[in-house]
Amino acid sequence: MTPPQGCPLVALLTDFGAEDTYVGVMKGVIGNLAPQSRVVDISHGVGQGNLEEAAFKLWQSVPYFPGESIFVIVVDPGVGTDRRAVAVRWRHYYLIAPDNGILTYLTALAPMDRAVSLDDRRYHLEPVSSTFHGRDIFAPAGGHLAAGVALADLGSPVSQLHELTLPKLDTAAQGLAGEIVHIDRFGNLITSLGRLRASSNSLHLEPWLPSAESQEFKGSATVAFPDGMSLPLSSTFGDVAPGEPVAYLGSEALVEVAINGGSAADELQFEVGDPVNLDFRG
Amino acid sequence: MTPPQGCPLVALLTDFGAEDTYVGVMKGVIGNLAPQSRVVDISHGVGQGNLEEAAFKLWQSVPYFPGESIFVIVVDPGVGTDRRAVAVRWRHYYLIAPDNGILTYLTALAPMDRAVSLDDRRYHLEPVSSTFHGRDIFAPAGGHLAAGVALADLGSPVSQLHELTLPKLDTAAQGLAGEIVHIDRFGNLITSLGRLRASSNSLHLEPWLPSAESQEFKGSATVAFPDGMSLPLSSTFGDVAPGEPVAYLGSEALVEVAINGGSAADELQFEVGDPVNLDFRG
Amino acid sequence: MTPPQGCPLVALLTDFGAEDTYVGVMKGVIGNLAPQSRVVDISHGVGQGNLEEAAFKLWQSVPYFPGESIFVIVVDPGVGTDRRAVAVRWRHYYLIAPDNGILTYLTALAPMDRAVSLDDRRYHLEPVSSTFHGRDIFAPAGGHLAAGVALADLGSPVSQLHELTLPKLDTAAQGLAGEIVHIDRFGNLITSLGRLRASSNSLHLEPWLPSAESQEFKGSATVAFPDGMSLPLSSTFGDVAPGEPVAYLGSEALVEVAINGGSAADELQFEVGDPVNLDFRG
Repeated sequence: MTPPQGCPLVALLTDFGAEDTYVGVMKGVIGNLAPQSRVVDISHGVGQGNLEEAAFKLWQSVPYFPGESIFVIVVDPGVGTDRRAVAVRWRHYYLIAPDNGILTYLTALAPMDRAVSLDDRRYHLEPVSSTFHGRDIFAPAGGHLAAGVALADLGSPVSQLHELTLPKLDTAAQGLAGEIVHIDRFGNLITSLGRLRASSNSLHLEPWLPSAESQEFKGSATVAFPDGMSLPLSSTFGDVAPGEPVAYLGSEALVEVAINGGSAADELQFEVGDPVNLDFRG
Repeated sequence: MTPPQGCPLVALLTDFGAEDTYVGVMKGVIGNLAPQSRVVDISHGVGQGNLEEAAFKLWQSVPYFPGESIFVIVVDPGVGTDRRAVAVRWRHYYLIAPDNGILTYLTALAPMDRAVSLDDRRYHLEPVSSTFHGRDIFAPAGGHLAAGVALADLGSPVSQLHELTLPKLDTAAQGLAGEIVHIDRFGNLITSLGRLRASSNSLHLEPWLPSAESQEFKGSATVAFPDGMSLPLSSTFGDVAPGEPVAYLGSEALVEVAINGGSAADELQFEVGDPVNLDFRG
Repeated sequence: MTPPQGCPLVALLTDFGAEDTYVGVMKGVIGNLAPQSRVVDISHGVGQGNLEEAAFKLWQSVPYFPGESIFVIVVDPGVGTDRRAVAVRWRHYYLIAPDNGILTYLTALAPMDRAVSLDDRRYHLEPVSSTFHGRDIFAPAGGHLAAGVALADLGSPVSQLHELTLPKLDTAAQGLAGEIVHIDRFGNLITSLGRLRASSNSLHLEPWLPSAESQEFKGSATVAFPDGMSLPLSSTFGDVAPGEPVAYLGSEALVEVAINGGSAADELQFEVGDPVNLDFRG
């Protein structure tokens, strides 16, 4: 494991919002420790303490970053309790986060290589407060990594991370059974049904969750909700008239439901966790 | 046309908001292709699919950036349809955007030098989704340009861009006839009336839109709304008491209307597109 | 006073919000003057024209940045009036701001070393508008400093800055009398009571405001509000059940009040400026 070279990218994901100075202070701490680093924001709009949302957003974004990027992730309802803080080597990335399960969706894709508890106080910003470990523990760990400190030096080894329950994605009689996992700014409903890639006249499932297995589906695909609504699986928004609902494969190859030019969340009244099925008929 | 050297600035304007990971993912893609680039946000708060707002915001901001800056612009209600994606050389900048008219206000200032359709799949992030070309086409084009790829290599030449209808700015009997083009965060109403520069006892019009011609106005200037409200043209907010409306030349030398310490949008109930005149009386 | 070397950090704090292009334009101006600088956002969510909030946010964040960082601060309700614009050397930082008191909380910690009025027009972006000095005066000053221009070159010396009234922090019969100074995104109430550091069985006050003096408090500490509510001073959120109010020493060693997992601002209905006492009983 080589420490990052050159101008490492440090990417931040928090639930701190844009109003307060919490994110700015973290950037100051990182800039102080690693003057050559470049800090970018993924989002600070995670719902307050929403671990599942943070886990999904990491899954959506981490794999698009350059190798050796350092992610500093602070969605931390347990700050000040005895929950651990960890730094994790996962694929060719560094993930720094509270050990509360927010890395679960990533580690369902591929196991972590190595983790340490951030318990070496030499790499903390003293005095460590009981409420802002983003400033005192997580940002310093990111800054030290960016400055060339080795992961193993940040603290003692950890063999097992806390895990969240994964979203539902099961093989069902006529296809797949899943649920809504995220609703985005546009009100689009993103489901657990995927990843699905279309080829000639079939859909190939390469599941993002270990509860399902790779398989091939043939026939016309229908997205079905418990209230009886069903939609054929289309290609994109533009396949339906403005104001009409449409189901399609989204940018992560998951089934999504949108209203063309509107908000599916507002108009259809579904919520994260609501069940949704994908049915195939010959 | 020389590709950018050193640490090129890549500036982002989208309607993606701050909640989701879409912008962060684009930064990851750009950082991956051009490790030396510096990415800055112009705004991600453009109204969903609002092309006129995006066009105005580009007109407001692009000319203040350093030469060779690369703008990646994603306000793209037609994503997944057959609308083109383009990279444009305009003055000493690179503009990467869907070909839906959002460059129109800039190209009304000065014609573009050259454009290509982003149709060379070597510079896409495969597989290209039908819903997130920001990640799969626009950010990769920006990253490749920042890394030194020539504009002409990104795809086939385009001679004509799609255009929006320009805002109204006409010579009228007693001065100028225009409209409200933008309302900012402070509730200030920004009109199409300008650019106007004050000198001794006259106002010089150097129009930002081709429908009007350079001219000199003398006499006292009054800003007139169709509901009968009229305001003398003042110098700045502070010329009136708190709570009072005031018309003045704003930071882009366009006539603006504000409430000193309040929101003109809330209190006066005007909207983008409402007509507004500038009258001169001897 | 050596001008900053290498890749200076330029940090922005404004009340411009995230919707408009005002912040993006400032980044363009800075990037143009100082191509090697790195610009980071502290926050653009200061309440419109709220000088006390800006002063507190600077106090919270500036000391965590690397030495030689340049802060460009634009909360400027007096733009276009004759209020001064200044650049200030404070500790090992540069602060660029309107002279309207927003530096007061910092200069209560330590006096400034030196200040100049930004009145040398060679360092303005001409023509200077009457409404957007962020673009025309403050960002250019930051860019020029980042590019190596000396503070003294930016304008004529200033010996006294405008000051805000400081928050209340007084010695009281049974301890300390203060007030609520800030409410954060989570609805946590941050008071002026501090800085307090716990040791064995006492609390040491090292006041952040000159109205109080260093002292040692013994006995059990109670946070008391004028409506009769009182809370024991605890260690962190987790010391109480979800939904319960808790008082604790926050990340700046100030007494804070939160609802575990909720919003104290919403549920307790206190506001900035409300009095709050810290009482010690043997």
